[in-house]
Amino acid sequence: MSWSPSMHRMLLFAFICLLFHHTQCYSWKTAFLKQQVDHFSFANQDTYAQRYLVNSTYWKRGGGPIFFYTGNEGDIEWFAQNTGFMWDIAEEFGAMLIFAEHRYYGQSLPYGNKSYSDAKYLGYLTSEQALADFAELLAYVKSTNSGAAESPVIAFGGSYGGMLAAWMRIKYPHIITGAIAASAPILQFTGLTPCDAFNRVVTADFSSASAECAETIRKSWKALSKILVNDEGKEWIRTHWNLCVPLKGTEDVANLKDWLTNVWTNLAMVNYPYPANFLAPLPAYPVKAVCEHLTNSTLDDHSLLDEIFKGLSVYANFTGQTQCLDVSQQADQSLGDMGWDFQACTEMVMPMCGDGINDMFEAQPWNLEKYAEKCLKKWKVNPRPLMAPLIYGGRNISSSSNIVFSNGLLDPWSTGGVTKSLSDSLIAIIIPEGAHHLDLRAADPNDPPSVIKAREIEKQFISKWISSTKRDRKEIPKSFIVG
Amino acid sequence: MSWSPSMHRMLLFAFICLLFHHTQCYSWKTAFLKQQVDHFSFANQDTYAQRYLVNSTYWKRGGGPIFFYTGNEGDIEWFAQNTGFMWDIAEEFGAMLIFAEHRYYGQSLPYGNKSYSDAKYLGYLTSEQALADFAELLAYVKSTNSGAAESPVIAFGGSYGGMLAAWMRIKYPHIITGAIAASAPILQFTGLTPCDAFNRVVTADFSSASAECAETIRKSWKALSKILVNDEGKEWIRTHWNLCVPLKGTEDVANLKDWLTNVWTNLAMVNYPYPANFLAPLPAYPVKAVCEHLTNSTLDDHSLLDEIFKGLSVYANFTGQTQCLDVSQQADQSLGDMGWDFQACTEMVMPMCGDGINDMFEAQPWNLEKYAEKCLKKWKVNPRPLMAPLIYGGRNISSSSNIVFSNGLLDPWSTGGVTKSLSDSLIAIIIPEGAHHLDLRAADPNDPPSVIKAREIEKQFISKWISSTKRDRKEIPKSFIVG
Repeated sequence: MSWSPSMHRMLLFAFICLLFHHTQCYSWKTAFLKQQVDHFSFANQDTYAQRYLVNSTYWKRGGGPIFFYTGNEGDIEWFAQNTGFMWDIAEEFGAMLIFAEHRYYGQSLPYGNKSYSDAKYLGYLTSEQALADFAELLAYVKSTNSGAAESPVIAFGGSYGGMLAAWMRIKYPHIITGAIAASAPILQFTGLTPCDAFNRVVTADFSSASAECAETIRKSWKALSKILVNDEGKEWIRTHWNLCVPLKGTEDVANLKDWLTNVWTNLAMVNYPYPANFLAPLPAYPVKAVCEHLTNSTLDDHSLLDEIFKGLSVYANFTGQTQCLDVSQQADQSLGDMGWDFQACTEMVMPMCGDGINDMFEAQPWNLEKYAEKCLKKWKVNPRPLMAPLIYGGRNISSSSNIVFSNGLLDPWSTGGVTKSLSDSLIAIIIPEGAHHLDLRAADPNDPPSVIKAREIEKQFISKWISSTKRDRKEIPKSFIVG
Repeated sequence: MSWSPSMHRMLLFAFICLLFHHTQCYSWKTAFLKQQVDHFSFANQDTYAQRYLVNSTYWKRGGGPIFFYTGNEGDIEWFAQNTGFMWDIAEEFGAMLIFAEHRYYGQSLPYGNKSYSDAKYLGYLTSEQALADFAELLAYVKSTNSGAAESPVIAFGGSYGGMLAAWMRIKYPHIITGAIAASAPILQFTGLTPCDAFNRVVTADFSSASAECAETIRKSWKALSKILVNDEGKEWIRTHWNLCVPLKGTEDVANLKDWLTNVWTNLAMVNYPYPANFLAPLPAYPVKAVCEHLTNSTLDDHSLLDEIFKGLSVYANFTGQTQCLDVSQQADQSLGDMGWDFQACTEMVMPMCGDGINDMFEAQPWNLEKYAEKCLKKWKVNPRPLMAPLIYGGRNISSSSNIVFSNGLLDPWSTGGVTKSLSDSLIAIIIPEGAHHLDLRAADPNDPPSVIKAREIEKQFISKWISSTKRDRKEIPKSFIVG
């Protein structure tokens, strides 16, 4: 028996587990499958190696289900580590676990280092191609694992991964028996959801911690604009906020504001009831922790920005290990920011806006034309904002079945989620105390009762879907033989 | 008011109508829509103009349905002329008629004259891309025709067009309310249907006309082989069969046999109960007409081949206008043979075989490896025989709904059709006296009762589908708000 690179990694991983006792210790085999770069045409017949992770510890060979994580925009190991729900229930269901990496993320780069260099290489980064990868992978797994041919497949995914899980069931119902789509904003597209809804929920999270908190953030934008108008102010910010790189032109100022906007948004998304390390290492209820520093919106500009810095340090420097504030980095490096930026410039066009009155951000209209210009300049692509609703159905998905859409009300992405059941088998679950796909995370002693209940309901539906595949057809429907 | 090219064509068409009184005289407006060459990726952002035909004569503006022909491998005007059923029932349903041309056929050539020159241009000729064209076209029609936004859409198609109609409902149920899939061999793929079934039905059609007929054809292959072994025999055939181009090498002999095989197959497909001009101008019940000449299988080789020539003249020269026999041409030039050949080499891989015992052809095993070699040589593509079943579901389509699959038992393609209902809304209709999508053709005084009945059933389902879209939802399903 020889050592493979993946065994080496598993040992390393076990070692890391011992170091950080909050991280769950899961294990898997890593494998790669040869996939078509283009599933739908023959102009480009290149292939690439897609990575996927498998754990068969609890699998009941001969019909036990396959729980399939539809990987989203990041390293698949990171999603495997952050989707404890699948690990928690694998034994009970006798399930095989598969985590499939999304093309163009992690190690699944169709053109290696060149993958992001040009639209001619990057252009195959679309959800349709990713779903076809998943379909091929499942066909391969079923045909090569003795006893898996009849295994029902349940798709799991959170966020964009949740959209993919739902779309897998919608588009490949012959392959996917049912889907748990957690915090999946499949309605966050043009014409389906008001563009200001998202920022209102972010704001509500902060103002429900304290009215002063949201108000302080709302006032910070003008304070920044006033102070950053000259070099003296830029130097002040560099020292007071401990920036790694000093600000220069107006573009740097805009970038700083974008970064801040993302920090507040991320905090609302990962407002979990216990310390976690999803987008960043954070304390329990991080929005509350931030807001403990933002208590007085009537301070002068400099003092107000000092407060803001204390608040955002909860996000940027919870561990106390950060040397300086790097505003070029948004979140955990496991997330493929570049890839998502490209997707957002092609088919994942999700209109966002705000008026600065009903939300705590700077007023910002949604302007598709400008957005498209930026995309063309950056990626040499023209966005197709209506592509995803056209392909997947937008709000008209009632012909589909067997999908649970779970949404946390603390999560701004819930505004683009399916929050009302559409039929007896297209089910909405609302988790009032839930942040972004909290239900997919491992059970935790600090879980609120709502998420525990949500997971129970999800398990009931999974059971129902699995047993429905085993039931025999009762009646043979009538064929018409005429003449 | 000025003359447009399409008005010019309509006048010309009306004139042709007067000449051939069997041809129905239909009229339409011709239009073109700008489409993405590649709907699923951004590596190629070229666009092209897709042709479609519209008739709104009977359309009930404000909700009247759209009857949408999912164009298959040929000139769309030819399908519009040969799908009389849609014209026959348009008034009764108050329907708008649309006939959409399939990319790479007729005038819908994405790269003009270069379209067929290289796989880099031709590679976008796939069913998935064609369906996305249809989806875009319907979105466009609905958004630009006042009163069409809520119109239910019924897809119609025959043969490969029937496959597309069914697949449109399967993949785009939010766009297509129901589908009439006539003689649609969606199961004629690897692993789904025995490869010898098709040729057995062709043979049965001939032997039910007379046992001697099929036997004569069965013996003709060896007679041809024996006679064509030398130049003298080749010259004999040239004069006796009145070939346009003399036969040279063994490849020409193989081509002649392929051509003959196709003639017998086409005859079985278009064995209509009245004179028609679908693949070729033919008398009523052309198989019977052919078999009237093939009455003695015990003749010597030369006499037997003289008989064969008389029989195939029914197909090749029914009008008496043919100067010589052109074995390089398979059927009506409106069919895009080249395009279909490419599709058969990519995703439409339909295994065919025979043993020469249970069928009247030369024994021919199915050999994917050799088939793939030929495809690679001819088109520089590697076939993906499992692609269509993976994408569309193969036999596992029971999650879908609202499709009528009609099959004529005389039609060899019925072997790959859905001939048993799969649910209360996935309906099979068997037409014992039906040839290839006879039900889609215009009503004719010589129609057998079975096809009349089949059309009645189809109309009932269309009514049901249309009224189901108008029914209000009775119950609001339960959402789960936990906590």
